[in-house]
Amino acid sequence: MTLKAIGIVRNEIKQRPEQGWEKIVSDIVIDSSLTEALDNLDEFSHIMVLLWMHQTAAGQLPMKVHPMGRQELPLVGRFATRSPHRPNPLGKTTVRLLERRGNILRVQGLDAVDGTPVIDIKPYIPGYDSADSARVPPWIRD
Amino acid sequence: MTLKAIGIVRNEIKQRPEQGWEKIVSDIVIDSSLTEALDNLDEFSHIMVLLWMHQTAAGQLPMKVHPMGRQELPLVGRFATRSPHRPNPLGKTTVRLLERRGNILRVQGLDAVDGTPVIDIKPYIPGYDSADSARVPPWIRD
Repeated sequence: MTLKAIGIVRNEIKQRPEQGWEKIVSDIVIDSSLTEALDNLDEFSHIMVLLWMHQTAAGQLPMKVHPMGRQELPLVGRFATRSPHRPNPLGKTTVRLLERRGNILRVQGLDAVDGTPVIDIKPYIPGYDSADSARVPPWIRD
Repeated sequence: MTLKAIGIVRNEIKQRPEQGWEKIVSDIVIDSSLTEALDNLDEFSHIMVLLWMHQTAAGQLPMKVHPMGRQELPLVGRFATRSPHRPNPLGKTTVRLLERRGNILRVQGLDAVDGTPVIDIKPYIPGYDSADSARVPPWIRD
């Protein structure tokens, strides 16, 4: 199973902070051969961006981690976290689509550094993508 | 960028219907070497399943499609739809986690046929994964 990048993230962020992404504005530059496939996307207020988190650690990963690297939180299974370090380094973020101009999508809230490869773009569809009444553990709420 | 399957979908569905997935119960059988990384996942009521939609068409895809193949809906850019036929055949579905037993996750609402490779599992986190007040075009609501 081989992925190809369909685009790349462009922003001012060179190093991954843990938090504070909410206000970051990024441009997603999509391969110009795919421009027409972006038509109508801006009829949605929010999109989901699938990323290849290329800056992640290689090699064998511990099965358990402290969420967000915070030692005071319990050690939990890696799949119960959003750590970028996972068997397939895939990221998925829901962002506000500010503007589409040609092959460029301007978005707000994308938690990815400059140069991150983009592998898919999907419209965010409430009901299908959201779960009302979802329950999360206390260590996520903290 | 190479993906490895971390598991496989097991259910009774051999052919993809367009709708009616809500009540389907599936087992996601994760590679047993990763069992411990699933710990704590069942503290979440909902998870997101990333899939490799292996039954999709190969070759060049038209840039525009009728959503869900319905000819009465407008022709829109492929990235504005959830069509499984996309440059990288990645699927992402939010499902209810009914039970985790060892390396098996029993879920409800997964829109994938038996044998679909699973490439990532993520906890669903309201607020991060949901967008209140998201706007969608009329052809999605229909």
